[in-house]
Amino acid sequence: MAYHPLKQVIEAADKAITEEDFDSLMAFYADDATLVIKPGMIATGKEQIHKAFLAIAEYFNHSLVVKQGAMHVIQGGNTALVIMETVLETTDNTGVTSCISRRATYVFREDPVGKWLCVIDNSYGTDLLGAM
Amino acid sequence: MAYHPLKQVIEAADKAITEEDFDSLMAFYADDATLVIKPGMIATGKEQIHKAFLAIAEYFNHSLVVKQGAMHVIQGGNTALVIMETVLETTDNTGVTSCISRRATYVFREDPVGKWLCVIDNSYGTDLLGAM
Repeated sequence: MAYHPLKQVIEAADKAITEEDFDSLMAFYADDATLVIKPGMIATGKEQIHKAFLAIAEYFNHSLVVKQGAMHVIQGGNTALVIMETVLETTDNTGVTSCISRRATYVFREDPVGKWLCVIDNSYGTDLLGAM
Repeated sequence: MAYHPLKQVIEAADKAITEEDFDSLMAFYADDATLVIKPGMIATGKEQIHKAFLAIAEYFNHSLVVKQGAMHVIQGGNTALVIMETVLETTDNTGVTSCISRRATYVFREDPVGKWLCVIDNSYGTDLLGAM
């Protein structure tokens, strides 16, 4: 697919997650954004999303590394749906590394000055249907 | 999941597709909406989307019946991502009926008077990643 500016935005956000720099991470979200923490559990707004990322970091033993795979962007005006392969690499207490690959869905909205903000962050993609 | 008004909107849109009432169908789309016709081929704006539906109806021998399965809505402010099982029933020239089940992704935007309009219609969901 053609290059889309959202590729860089998502790479930078994933880098912030990997570095546990959640203050910087919040700048990628719209004020009214919703994050799917896990099937059936969501966080809405930056305060809840920030807390969720602290809990996620703890859950993964502060070892989470987020990497990007194939990406596809479908844009309608100032709204974009991103379909993306996201790889989560984690290491447990005994030093064993695991990889989880997800086909994620993200919705971004472009603000009037051309900045793309994440409004829906659903890393579970269509697997939500099977999980609920 | 809790009832979401988008359930009725999508049912009505699918009914319009089944009835080949594409003029009514266009009322469900935003002016700047994008439809994924098939992986790698999109239509943007009502004129292109209307033409695409005429071609789709022809392709399926005017037999297409669209039915809804499980649905999940994730809302962030005035934007909603719908993850939905969509069943396409078609009948060929010899009278044989087939079913295609897709895990679709739709993005809707609520306008200032509370009307939800489809801005991205991607019935292929995350399968786009495997198809491109």
